[in-house]
Amino acid sequence: MEFDLKTYLEEKKAIVETALENYLAQEGGVYQEILEAMRYTLFAGGKRLRPILCLTACKVVGGEEEIALPIACALEMIHTYSLIHDDLPAMDNDDFRRGKPTSHKVFGEAMAILAGDALLTQAFYLLSHPSLLEKISADRLLKVINIIASAAGYKGMITGQVMDLKATGQKINMETLENMHRHKTGALIIASVKSGAIIGGGSFSEIKALSEYAHQIGLAFQIVDDILDVEGNSKEMGKMVGSDEAKQKSTYVSLLGLEKAKMAAENCIKKAIEALKNFDKKADPLRALAYYIKERKK
Amino acid sequence: MEFDLKTYLEEKKAIVETALENYLAQEGGVYQEILEAMRYTLFAGGKRLRPILCLTACKVVGGEEEIALPIACALEMIHTYSLIHDDLPAMDNDDFRRGKPTSHKVFGEAMAILAGDALLTQAFYLLSHPSLLEKISADRLLKVINIIASAAGYKGMITGQVMDLKATGQKINMETLENMHRHKTGALIIASVKSGAIIGGGSFSEIKALSEYAHQIGLAFQIVDDILDVEGNSKEMGKMVGSDEAKQKSTYVSLLGLEKAKMAAENCIKKAIEALKNFDKKADPLRALAYYIKERKK
Repeated sequence: MEFDLKTYLEEKKAIVETALENYLAQEGGVYQEILEAMRYTLFAGGKRLRPILCLTACKVVGGEEEIALPIACALEMIHTYSLIHDDLPAMDNDDFRRGKPTSHKVFGEAMAILAGDALLTQAFYLLSHPSLLEKISADRLLKVINIIASAAGYKGMITGQVMDLKATGQKINMETLENMHRHKTGALIIASVKSGAIIGGGSFSEIKALSEYAHQIGLAFQIVDDILDVEGNSKEMGKMVGSDEAKQKSTYVSLLGLEKAKMAAENCIKKAIEALKNFDKKADPLRALAYYIKERKK
Repeated sequence: MEFDLKTYLEEKKAIVETALENYLAQEGGVYQEILEAMRYTLFAGGKRLRPILCLTACKVVGGEEEIALPIACALEMIHTYSLIHDDLPAMDNDDFRRGKPTSHKVFGEAMAILAGDALLTQAFYLLSHPSLLEKISADRLLKVINIIASAAGYKGMITGQVMDLKATGQKINMETLENMHRHKTGALIIASVKSGAIIGGGSFSEIKALSEYAHQIGLAFQIVDDILDVEGNSKEMGKMVGSDEAKQKSTYVSLLGLEKAKMAAENCIKKAIEALKNFDKKADPLRALAYYIKERKK
């Protein structure tokens, strides 16, 4: 495969960031403070994985990537809100994220809580904006809102975080660990791909195949995260290596050992590629992304 | 006017609470813990003002009250989330709400933050649920989602809380105080009435008149709150009387004095009633509610 993933990711990242800047421009006056806090973490340099998956899924099923852009940006806002709240002192109490001081370290706890709340709410504002109806039917848009709200809600991301908090300092088994990650990160990654595919007009079987792909890369992403926490380089990672162990968190590495964890990641990638078998070369970015997740260093 | 408001409010409250129970039933297993925390504050005995306003507005413009019920419940979930987060130690640090220990006192800070996040997200899940399309058009539903997201977001409720946090311990002027309340509580109260009227098929001028009504009673509600904080009875209020003064918060009473504050509330009620002048007796619950807000003791 000769697909240039690096260029692809850079291009899409730039498109997403320009759109985010448009959707959440800094203002003066009474909104200045909250916007500053919202924008600080939103523009703190993420990989934009979820929005890129959304845009790509839209294109893979034959849709115009541009139409999915507001959906993609809403997903990134929700992801960012979850990072801000997860980092809070009452939660994971992290001082750094992506190499920068976390929101509550810069703006204080109250503003960090509110910035998260505001990003979550703004995502739904964006998803329901009348201007989207120029290119997306109201029915399709509602479906996407419902899927995203479900993935971000207590049946998804939030229970993942509850399970994560409970698991800290505890020895949990493999089933619980997988269930936790399925909720905490898997649900929103699947929703990203699914919403892109719906906006692009994908068929039932296309959406199903892409969801399986997303499930597998989500899992692989998490396993590799755990491996990097042991093997990685602090500077590249932008956070402390070994922090899982220090926090006594159960991980794929602590439960399976390093070698078996690597094999498990490999296996997920295989299944992800297999899920794409009925797609043509339009799906090459997704294939390349799956391989990249396994090889990534940060 | 012979309208029996007490019975009306009790009836509607029961309808809203039955629906909330349906929409957010307790479950066992992995969702048990977060649902418990979400339900604790949701069923801690609020007045259900926002949902009742939504249902009533729907009926006033000729719609079937029942159709607005999911919207009404979503509004109450958003209101409850805002209470949970506002009470947090990093925010207002309140130990009691409606006479009961606040969420973070019962479940800890992390769970309180997550319960708030989950209620906010669940509101949008409910608002976008496919089953609603049986009785509401997708276009109308999207409009309502957008209005509610706007009122709950950084251009509404959240900036209200930011302004409130900044104002604590500071002397602010009347303009800032009104601007704060317009964001913090006014926006969602207006959205409650507006969304009900839209679901009910209200005309542009009907929606405008009802929004003005909502703006005025929202303001009156806040002024009376400030008056009760000075004059009220702790037992009836379910919270400490004099807490605004203890926290050095600027209030209508501290800025205007007790007598002028009472006159200001009176004036809002007059304007609220005036806004309803083109509605028939279907709007009697709204009229009675306006008078009740002025007379309330808790």
